[in-house]
Amino acid sequence: MTGSHNIHHAPDSSSAHSLPHDSSSSPGSGPVIDDFIAVIPAGGVGSRLWPLSQPHRPKFLLDLLGTGTTLLQDTVTRLAPLASQTIVVTGQRHADAVAAQVPQVPAANLVAEPTPRDSMAAIALAAAIIQHRHGDRIMGSFAADHVIGEPDKFRAAVRIAVSAARTGKVVTIGINPTEASSAFGYIAQGADLPDAPGAFAVREFTEKPDPETAASMLASGGYVWNAGMFVVSTAVLLGHLERLQPGIYAGVTEIAATWDSDERQASLEHVWPTLTKIAIDHAIAEPVAAAGGVAVVPGAFDWHDVGDFDSLAGLLTPDADGVTRIGRSAAVGTFGSSGVVAVGGTKALAVVGIDDVVIVESDEALLVLSRAAAQEVKAAAASGL
Amino acid sequence: MTGSHNIHHAPDSSSAHSLPHDSSSSPGSGPVIDDFIAVIPAGGVGSRLWPLSQPHRPKFLLDLLGTGTTLLQDTVTRLAPLASQTIVVTGQRHADAVAAQVPQVPAANLVAEPTPRDSMAAIALAAAIIQHRHGDRIMGSFAADHVIGEPDKFRAAVRIAVSAARTGKVVTIGINPTEASSAFGYIAQGADLPDAPGAFAVREFTEKPDPETAASMLASGGYVWNAGMFVVSTAVLLGHLERLQPGIYAGVTEIAATWDSDERQASLEHVWPTLTKIAIDHAIAEPVAAAGGVAVVPGAFDWHDVGDFDSLAGLLTPDADGVTRIGRSAAVGTFGSSGVVAVGGTKALAVVGIDDVVIVESDEALLVLSRAAAQEVKAAAASGL
Repeated sequence: MTGSHNIHHAPDSSSAHSLPHDSSSSPGSGPVIDDFIAVIPAGGVGSRLWPLSQPHRPKFLLDLLGTGTTLLQDTVTRLAPLASQTIVVTGQRHADAVAAQVPQVPAANLVAEPTPRDSMAAIALAAAIIQHRHGDRIMGSFAADHVIGEPDKFRAAVRIAVSAARTGKVVTIGINPTEASSAFGYIAQGADLPDAPGAFAVREFTEKPDPETAASMLASGGYVWNAGMFVVSTAVLLGHLERLQPGIYAGVTEIAATWDSDERQASLEHVWPTLTKIAIDHAIAEPVAAAGGVAVVPGAFDWHDVGDFDSLAGLLTPDADGVTRIGRSAAVGTFGSSGVVAVGGTKALAVVGIDDVVIVESDEALLVLSRAAAQEVKAAAASGL
Repeated sequence: MTGSHNIHHAPDSSSAHSLPHDSSSSPGSGPVIDDFIAVIPAGGVGSRLWPLSQPHRPKFLLDLLGTGTTLLQDTVTRLAPLASQTIVVTGQRHADAVAAQVPQVPAANLVAEPTPRDSMAAIALAAAIIQHRHGDRIMGSFAADHVIGEPDKFRAAVRIAVSAARTGKVVTIGINPTEASSAFGYIAQGADLPDAPGAFAVREFTEKPDPETAASMLASGGYVWNAGMFVVSTAVLLGHLERLQPGIYAGVTEIAATWDSDERQASLEHVWPTLTKIAIDHAIAEPVAAAGGVAVVPGAFDWHDVGDFDSLAGLLTPDADGVTRIGRSAAVGTFGSSGVVAVGGTKALAVVGIDDVVIVESDEALLVLSRAAAQEVKAAAASGL
């Protein structure tokens, strides 16, 4: 039997929200922001979701929630009511799949990286293309593979961040932490900013903490999760870049100057491989925060990184038979087993005498996983099986 | 990687034995017994081995040990040095597969039952065909799906049983029990029989006991397992049958009279479906034993019913990586998992964070099974998955 799936509502949450379809009620509703451009870096395999995710079939291309749309499509759709246009930056090998999934993004706004150069180069090239085409604009960069349960609240936070970005800050949207996770970096939130209502100073970015540190940060209440969402004027971003990473600045400026010409591919192939591999956090966010140039808008929306099968299963409600199904069409039977998660697959599946197990059947491979060991899938993905 | 498989030697056994290839040393060696005919009822799905076994692909047709030969082939090969000929009785739907697997059995010795009528009718028809063709002979009936690790010792026991059968007894070969199993019936062994060296009187057959009863029978020392092996003269068997099950006697006699003629199929289809469904144990062995007509030869050979995946895995030695592989060609990787049994399958398999688990991939289905719940597979097989 084929199950229908719903997002699991946390028992302590009274908010009614639905995924992945947007509703258009306030406070997230409002007009498109004419000078706001969405940038979506679509990278990362998501190796803890192997064998569903694979290098040739990364997480952002997957319909991970079984809703009929992929995480990338959901991301583009979520931003469409806000942004005047969208730029997607992805690896060359995924460019065709991305173009097929989001045909509303014009070819000129699809940046295909010849090789992975980490997030700073990807975001910087998008910024440089925008700056070259349009002059200064507000850009917002959002990962292609996150799950957001309350798009209205998300868009409301983005609107606040866009306003804050107009004051010259690099603005990040922080996620209100719901647990003492050591899977995310944290942002230390400072005083509120008088000229940017709803935004706060950032005292510092911290790396992924150990569990004890995470617990103390959660208890102190002054921290939000760093979800890698940055809203900033392109001129401000490129200014920081010119000062902090002049090589990347020069490179992306050179590529951007040829982007809408016949020389695009030549300059991309010539310059791109020379760019420094560095994350935007290290290149810009941390040093600029130390100098007081970063603001944070706390986001009150449901947000999930969906890093592994256990957290993915936690987002879904089991079917009436107790089985949580993700993209599985063939029958599942359980016998003396509870907490079964069945992912993908075209063969009938029986689980006998095992609790809290995830079974994934992809075209290439099978994974049989204890939910408690969901993080360890990385080792299986790296094993070359 | 593909693993090689060896039969696991029990630590308390000092006997060196190999499976499935015969050696020809004493005491099992010797000439073919001219008047001895092997009868192999090939029936039973083996539903606790689902989805490897299926109604269309029963246990006896499987290369369960990964040796390159099936249990049926092993059974025929094991008896070939003893028997002047072999008769296989199987279901009509399996007749072609049986003929293909054991081409050394002539078509006239392949009995294809139109419908299952249990073991008495199957064995009785073989007896009647032999009697009609040759007159009185000694027949030995042996299931097609048992695993025997020491064929020489097995054949030595059969030779003793054949001699005992010449005294007019129904002779069964009992297995020395190695544990207090409640999976088998037990045979209460009586005094030795002066005119049949190596054979003993049978006091009674008992049904599969509860664990406490099994333990006390094992402790008493006077019991062997009933493995359904019967050696008997066809005239003696048919005589008992005529008295105890006259309907079956009349039916198989009628079919046998036409067996080597053009009327075989017509009489089979006409008479066979009318035969009483009853096991040979209930029809003959139990009542004849009560009248003192059954003898038992204790068998000292390795014998396994291989009823489920846990017992099957117990017969095999794991590969160097700790994984026990059965008919699996694709790669297996384990991560924080021990006691993994991988059966069949063409897709790479990763097991993460789960111990003592059996994963079976057939063309139709997947089974993920706790070894401790191996008996419960029956429910999965019956579920129609």
